[in-house]
Amino acid sequence: MESSKFVAIIVGSRSDLEVVQKAADLLGKLGVANELRVISAHRAPDLLDRYVMDALTRGATVFICAAGLAAHLPGVVASKTTLPVIGLPMPGQVGGGLDALLSIVQMPKAVPVATVGIGQAENAALLAAQMLGLSDSGIAKAVADHRAEARRQIEEDATNQ
Amino acid sequence: MESSKFVAIIVGSRSDLEVVQKAADLLGKLGVANELRVISAHRAPDLLDRYVMDALTRGATVFICAAGLAAHLPGVVASKTTLPVIGLPMPGQVGGGLDALLSIVQMPKAVPVATVGIGQAENAALLAAQMLGLSDSGIAKAVADHRAEARRQIEEDATNQ
Amino acid sequence: MESSKFVAIIVGSRSDLEVVQKAADLLGKLGVANELRVISAHRAPDLLDRYVMDALTRGATVFICAAGLAAHLPGVVASKTTLPVIGLPMPGQVGGGLDALLSIVQMPKAVPVATVGIGQAENAALLAAQMLGLSDSGIAKAVADHRAEARRQIEEDATNQ
Amino acid sequence: MESSKFVAIIVGSRSDLEVVQKAADLLGKLGVANELRVISAHRAPDLLDRYVMDALTRGATVFICAAGLAAHLPGVVASKTTLPVIGLPMPGQVGGGLDALLSIVQMPKAVPVATVGIGQAENAALLAAQMLGLSDSGIAKAVADHRAEARRQIEEDATNQ
Amino acid sequence: MESSKFVAIIVGSRSDLEVVQKAADLLGKLGVANELRVISAHRAPDLLDRYVMDALTRGATVFICAAGLAAHLPGVVASKTTLPVIGLPMPGQVGGGLDALLSIVQMPKAVPVATVGIGQAENAALLAAQMLGLSDSGIAKAVADHRAEARRQIEEDATNQ
Amino acid sequence: MESSKFVAIIVGSRSDLEVVQKAADLLGKLGVANELRVISAHRAPDLLDRYVMDALTRGATVFICAAGLAAHLPGVVASKTTLPVIGLPMPGQVGGGLDALLSIVQMPKAVPVATVGIGQAENAALLAAQMLGLSDSGIAKAVADHRAEARRQIEEDATNQ
Amino acid sequence: MESSKFVAIIVGSRSDLEVVQKAADLLGKLGVANELRVISAHRAPDLLDRYVMDALTRGATVFICAAGLAAHLPGVVASKTTLPVIGLPMPGQVGGGLDALLSIVQMPKAVPVATVGIGQAENAALLAAQMLGLSDSGIAKAVADHRAEARRQIEEDATNQ
Amino acid sequence: MESSKFVAIIVGSRSDLEVVQKAADLLGKLGVANELRVISAHRAPDLLDRYVMDALTRGATVFICAAGLAAHLPGVVASKTTLPVIGLPMPGQVGGGLDALLSIVQMPKAVPVATVGIGQAENAALLAAQMLGLSDSGIAKAVADHRAEARRQIEEDATNQ
Repeated sequence: MESSKFVAIIVGSRSDLEVVQKAADLLGKLGVANELRVISAHRAPDLLDRYVMDALTRGATVFICAAGLAAHLPGVVASKTTLPVIGLPMPGQVGGGLDALLSIVQMPKAVPVATVGIGQAENAALLAAQMLGLSDSGIAKAVADHRAEARRQIEEDATNQ
Repeated sequence: MESSKFVAIIVGSRSDLEVVQKAADLLGKLGVANELRVISAHRAPDLLDRYVMDALTRGATVFICAAGLAAHLPGVVASKTTLPVIGLPMPGQVGGGLDALLSIVQMPKAVPVATVGIGQAENAALLAAQMLGLSDSGIAKAVADHRAEARRQIEEDATNQ
Repeated sequence: MESSKFVAIIVGSRSDLEVVQKAADLLGKLGVANELRVISAHRAPDLLDRYVMDALTRGATVFICAAGLAAHLPGVVASKTTLPVIGLPMPGQVGGGLDALLSIVQMPKAVPVATVGIGQAENAALLAAQMLGLSDSGIAKAVADHRAEARRQIEEDATNQ
Repeated sequence: MESSKFVAIIVGSRSDLEVVQKAADLLGKLGVANELRVISAHRAPDLLDRYVMDALTRGATVFICAAGLAAHLPGVVASKTTLPVIGLPMPGQVGGGLDALLSIVQMPKAVPVATVGIGQAENAALLAAQMLGLSDSGIAKAVADHRAEARRQIEEDATNQ
Repeated sequence: MESSKFVAIIVGSRSDLEVVQKAADLLGKLGVANELRVISAHRAPDLLDRYVMDALTRGATVFICAAGLAAHLPGVVASKTTLPVIGLPMPGQVGGGLDALLSIVQMPKAVPVATVGIGQAENAALLAAQMLGLSDSGIAKAVADHRAEARRQIEEDATNQ
Repeated sequence: MESSKFVAIIVGSRSDLEVVQKAADLLGKLGVANELRVISAHRAPDLLDRYVMDALTRGATVFICAAGLAAHLPGVVASKTTLPVIGLPMPGQVGGGLDALLSIVQMPKAVPVATVGIGQAENAALLAAQMLGLSDSGIAKAVADHRAEARRQIEEDATNQ
Repeated sequence: MESSKFVAIIVGSRSDLEVVQKAADLLGKLGVANELRVISAHRAPDLLDRYVMDALTRGATVFICAAGLAAHLPGVVASKTTLPVIGLPMPGQVGGGLDALLSIVQMPKAVPVATVGIGQAENAALLAAQMLGLSDSGIAKAVADHRAEARRQIEEDATNQ
Repeated sequence: MESSKFVAIIVGSRSDLEVVQKAADLLGKLGVANELRVISAHRAPDLLDRYVMDALTRGATVFICAAGLAAHLPGVVASKTTLPVIGLPMPGQVGGGLDALLSIVQMPKAVPVATVGIGQAENAALLAAQMLGLSDSGIAKAVADHRAEARRQIEEDATNQ
């Protein structure tokens, strides 16, 4: 059932919810179904397991996992599926979030996580949409339109200087 | 023409070719057509432009861009297409490649690059295959088989201790 | 059955086995039963799950988990038990192992990992023995003797200068 | 006298007292006797010496030592006892507390310090309780209940989304 | 037409405009014609291309390019011209702007970017004026006067202590 | 006397001479007169003073200053002239040369140093030539030819894949 | 003339004066004559030269030099005298002042700078007094009393808990 | 008894002895009595205590303390005396010795350590001699001669280019 496909967004801590909501909002605007859950990889590993398994059966296609500090959430989800997993490091005190970035991006051989910039929730959403756009021309067009809109804005700004 | 689709791999410097070749090899093993070019974003920007445009018309679906130092190649390609771009930072002297990692992953709003770990060429290939597997069950199966094989290897290792 | 108690040592990658073996050797010397397994948190999550559960039923008291890069192994084990988990970051390219250190030590609230220095396998063993020594005077004495021996060595060195 | 056992918490600077008090509070909640002292390793080394010796005779079982900057307190205490010492790095200006983290965790061979995340006072307390829980089923149960409570909270949060 | 020569200042993001305006102001004060545009290398690569080409035909002599995060703007411009390009890294969260600094300064062989300190817009302007002063004695004198003025200020301050 | 103009290259330590010689060689190839001296800013400040003053009277137009560690040489020269000073950080142990990079690039307001990448001696030479090319069409052409040659090399490489 | 001896304190920027004043105040309290000047090594090198030479003839015994960013002041002064020079790195944006710390402490062979912690003006003063105390028992006693007072304060604090 | 005065050099680990020997050799050359001991602050705290106390009664004037990793030795000695303590960080894996540097230099208020560059044993010796030269004109002259010799060497090198 094509229409049941969705992007599963998981955030490790309620305190990061506001930032990550922007990913959900942008996916919505791009016409990509999605759902957002707050589940800690460390404090609720079984719940995370059950959620990932359930999401897989319900039609999850891409996972976006946002976490800070020793950010294991994206890697843990990536170890449970061979669907694409996008890692979104959250800002923090050590080097501005360098701990989360390294904990997410430095995955070992065989289990990649597609990492975006620190706190760049909208880029996580765009990347998910780009992946889905590979086989969904509607989404591909929405992504292209979004980029064109960003460009138009910048060109207008430049003209009005 | 479905069969002409391919993953375009670009590496910024000939000195990194050996590492990046592993991405091409793994894609081949996973049944994903691909081509590999050495093009410097900084020293040959027009060639890069032409190559990207040509690759897009010939059926490129995902780009893998490998670069070191002030690694602009992935971001430059990402600015020219809304197809997914995977960034592969190469090891280096500053913090072991931290300059390349930050130059690739810290992309601004609206232009994501899907970054993998420093020097993890095979993970770049796997990520590309995971993206394509979203709509190609053969590739999806190949990726799943590859993971299962890695797991089997580890389980055997653990058993034989 | 008191006598079946043991320290479970897990290392994420076969390439780190030689370093981690020193932890097993020192535990043996201190009279602490232990077993050592190579299990990747990312590539064999189910095997890790099963091993941890099995180890818990067989009498594991403390876990020592060694990993490099985005080192999730200690945190993943810590999420599955409230027994003490010791994290041993392995040296690496980024800052000499800073990625592994931050991925291990920066655990969020409620799920601690007792982290030792980069590559300090023997200190991981000593820390496990110190924990067990809290209720086992034989182990406590072995640890104290080991420290006294180290001190004696240093005092002799200093005298002979 | 079993009942006189306690966790000794030492903080190097009065300015960090508020954060470290959380460790004492959580230990209290977990039923673990504890006492908290402000003693600078650098400015009052003799007092520290006397306190550690006195605490050892009065029944200290685990030490939690919190310090910032060139954070020597945990290592100095670890050099005076073979009981477990937990190091708690305090946040600071250099890399968000990276100086304190490295000064605590990078202990040389033979003298481990069990390091927790920067500013994670409650994790220091939990780790101490986990160690004591190895031989005190009441504490072990309190730790397990605390984890279960954290999990329940997260599961409820996830359900109510 | 000698009099049409100017320094082209490009800033990658409107949010950095206020800081970069100081470079334009100082150039004006030094008698160096200049123009300032907001153009993102990533979001408007074609506009950037057209602007650089147009600026070159209109008499641009030196480019000042300011950007943050994965700061590719200076390198992209440097790849399109062999005129001098000055890179101005903007402050940011990761290490206070270390990501932008490394993304700008670590250019590969054959394509230099003249990098100034993080957020030092006035130094970017001075450097451009120093370059132009090599063949324009009026500008050279203005730069020398500016330095002398700074020195006089400091000498007066020192005298009045 | 136009023909007496030259680029003054100073390197702080004899051990870095071999790397810095590449800058002199490339300048020679580009038709830019230059001279290279080994003078330590810290160990021979008076000699440095005299050399800079002498070089200025003899026709120095641009300074290239290479140094490692606490690399003060470029900043010290920049404080003595308002001609352009190019800073070349040498590789080293701390973060691969991060100490030299920061010591050179982070100059305060009013005294810029045009910094190139760590160990990039040829880029220092190119940058000097670009500056001189602003008013010397022969040098400008030589720089453009050098870039074109680099590009041609890369295009040939790409074609021959 | 013994009584004319003094510690010369130089701060590179007026904006750091308030912090550095603490060093002067503490020296005064310890009975050490001192004078404090704001002189930028980069913007007023001749003034700095003249001041150092003048201070040397007037009886300066130790120099305290405070600076931020590419902090050359301590090294420049150290190159002009073989009296002890104390370097005081000022806090800043890059890693909390890591740029200033590395620019000061990483001096090459033959020209040491005695570096204290970032922003620790009082420690710079104490270190100067310790040096002078080597041959002035009054100052030595003042330093010892100051330490004893700090210790007494801490012991009282500990008692009153 | 003036003639019994000496500089006490302590190194925390036998593996660093060869580097630190250079400090002793240079002190000898400068006519400064000294003794060198290998004593670990962590593994032999009582021996360190006794040695420091003994050295103080025998005429130690300045301490040079060399250590790597979590380098507590200089700080521990500084806490036991108000004589000057020079800290010499040893190179290491994390950032090239950044852990040792931060562990030594970032001392809290009231207990300074005079830190020199990573691995710069000769600078530690020179700094000690500079301190003693404040009241010993023979040592002061030896230090000045050593600097002059270094300068002469560099001037000859520069002349012979």
